[in-house]
Amino acid sequence: MEQENRIRIGITCGDANGIGYEVIFKTFAEPTIFELCTPVLYGNPRIATYHRKGLNLNTNFAAIQNASEALPDRLNLVVVDDSEVKVELGSASQEAGQQALMSLDKALRDYSEGKIDVIVTAPINKNTIQSEKFHFPGHTEYIQDKLGKGSEALMILMNERLRVALVTTHLPISQVASAITEESVLAKLRILNRSLLRDFALSAPRIAVLALNPHAGDNGLLGAEEQQVIVPAIEKANAEGIAAFGPYAADGFFGSHAYDHFDAVLAMYHDQGLTAFKALAMDDGVNFTAGLPVVRTSPAHGTAYDIAGRGEADENSFRQAIFIATDIWRNRKFFDESVANPLPKLYQDRREDMGGPRPFRDGNFERRPRPTTEQ
Amino acid sequence: MEQENRIRIGITCGDANGIGYEVIFKTFAEPTIFELCTPVLYGNPRIATYHRKGLNLNTNFAAIQNASEALPDRLNLVVVDDSEVKVELGSASQEAGQQALMSLDKALRDYSEGKIDVIVTAPINKNTIQSEKFHFPGHTEYIQDKLGKGSEALMILMNERLRVALVTTHLPISQVASAITEESVLAKLRILNRSLLRDFALSAPRIAVLALNPHAGDNGLLGAEEQQVIVPAIEKANAEGIAAFGPYAADGFFGSHAYDHFDAVLAMYHDQGLTAFKALAMDDGVNFTAGLPVVRTSPAHGTAYDIAGRGEADENSFRQAIFIATDIWRNRKFFDESVANPLPKLYQDRREDMGGPRPFRDGNFERRPRPTTEQ
Repeated sequence: MEQENRIRIGITCGDANGIGYEVIFKTFAEPTIFELCTPVLYGNPRIATYHRKGLNLNTNFAAIQNASEALPDRLNLVVVDDSEVKVELGSASQEAGQQALMSLDKALRDYSEGKIDVIVTAPINKNTIQSEKFHFPGHTEYIQDKLGKGSEALMILMNERLRVALVTTHLPISQVASAITEESVLAKLRILNRSLLRDFALSAPRIAVLALNPHAGDNGLLGAEEQQVIVPAIEKANAEGIAAFGPYAADGFFGSHAYDHFDAVLAMYHDQGLTAFKALAMDDGVNFTAGLPVVRTSPAHGTAYDIAGRGEADENSFRQAIFIATDIWRNRKFFDESVANPLPKLYQDRREDMGGPRPFRDGNFERRPRPTTEQ
Repeated sequence: MEQENRIRIGITCGDANGIGYEVIFKTFAEPTIFELCTPVLYGNPRIATYHRKGLNLNTNFAAIQNASEALPDRLNLVVVDDSEVKVELGSASQEAGQQALMSLDKALRDYSEGKIDVIVTAPINKNTIQSEKFHFPGHTEYIQDKLGKGSEALMILMNERLRVALVTTHLPISQVASAITEESVLAKLRILNRSLLRDFALSAPRIAVLALNPHAGDNGLLGAEEQQVIVPAIEKANAEGIAAFGPYAADGFFGSHAYDHFDAVLAMYHDQGLTAFKALAMDDGVNFTAGLPVVRTSPAHGTAYDIAGRGEADENSFRQAIFIATDIWRNRKFFDESVANPLPKLYQDRREDMGGPRPFRDGNFERRPRPTTEQ
């Protein structure tokens, strides 16, 4: 690929006491990844060096003052801060949290200014990052606020086999049921469907919707939200041409591997979707924030304080986050160009066979053959 | 084993339109299982024959009028009903539900009269079994009511690798948070710990307690129940000598395979525990009702209407339910005899090494070597 086509990936360093720098350095130790992208890491060169030396890694980086100075074929580090900060491996500290916030803020600013194409975030500690400027449960909500331009984010956890999206994310269980409304489910179905079309280049995506209550409410014996809220939301989605099915009882759905028959699963709340997802796919899981103008991914794991500084962190999830961010960026570009310049019908049909995206509008999904998951 | 030592297993037929008879017949097609137990199936011989012929299975059964007539080395069928009932494979029907209830009621009665030793239940449809007599969310609650003698049931889902117990079971999500109290968590920890000692012959069981809220409440940002309810319950349990740890965020706990370090996991609600359990262990999962005088197990799957009558049902889970019921019955007997006739200290210590049960009371679990999960 020519140099100018490489995607510029803004990378935040995450919590300085966790495994962020470790998985970043391990990912860019492999030279072939530079053929895909030009990485722009936002961080503190002293902390970066501390991790690099402590872990005995030989990935080099080039400190720069501005993302516009980033060069291909190397790991660029935009100096967000170069103060001496005590790294306390595996501990929560305000300093480590503030390093994460400075890195994130600079990446978001540079994205707004067009200096980077996509954002990949390393894990933060949701407690120590809190400050006057950051009053959010996590990355997803903060990025929606800063770069959302009024659009609503949808958290999708994914690997090669499974995509799980959540209607509610960082909510106490006591508040989940009241947050499940016809509007909230339908809104997430629309975002998810559009993301499957535009971000994943699927021509006729199928979405499984999970129930809120155990046994899908057992016809009302164990809760009424399925009948009163989720079924009507699915019916409205179907009327709009969204191929949504369910609601399915979560335990049986994952137990019977029913997810193999769908392109994505919409879960009602955090632990319902993510406990099953991580049980099945922890090592290569990626978190993608759909629905926003910006493409942002992150590894599915957290700061992993328990193994910080030991060299044991597996970088596969972070590497997948890089790959998926670049895939989505390209798919979007292709999709948007197709929509902007529609081709004659015959040719478009042939493109469909070749795996190109085509929006699906007739709602007549029952009789269609099931598409393969990835194209 | 001598004939008179074989455990008499009462087996309910479950929903007549599901896969109950199929997995029962497949399990007893293998003659060696009769060396372990004498099965006493409660059912309708016409329906049994319908399934047997339709599936082309050659397991024989002997119709008897009273469980006291059960003979070893064969599948005994106590005739609970012999009316002509239309089997509607894969459909919910009141008739099929009432067959399940008649079977269950007769088994419970016979258990009370000492005619059977343990009960293994085939899956019911929780809607069609409802009647004037049955106003319960499921088997567990009904059996607690009928045979509990005031003791409280605890649902444990298990396979060879994992045991998951639930604080709340068949509750709408909107009611879960308020049902998680210090008392309810502590009560379930006590039942679970005693069951691990007495039913599973573990000498120093370790229990992982899951959090209620996502990210274990993130130090109060996402819910206060961890700090206000679950941690105090764990501390009280520890003071009683119960080796309980946590609370752990459910997604990370299952994602990191942390369950390998514990003998059981206490989840706060149905989908939190069972979605992960079934994702990992659907095919050989067994549901054990701990805490009651009666030993009752069942397969983890349901009526499986989608494959009823096709011969595709996997009987492994049902077979495991039989094995585990007999194991637990023997462990309990051995434990109770040990407690009733305590042996001199030295000899008891040697028994510990040999894998026999010994209650663990000093609360000093941190420094103990971890026992193997099964003994």
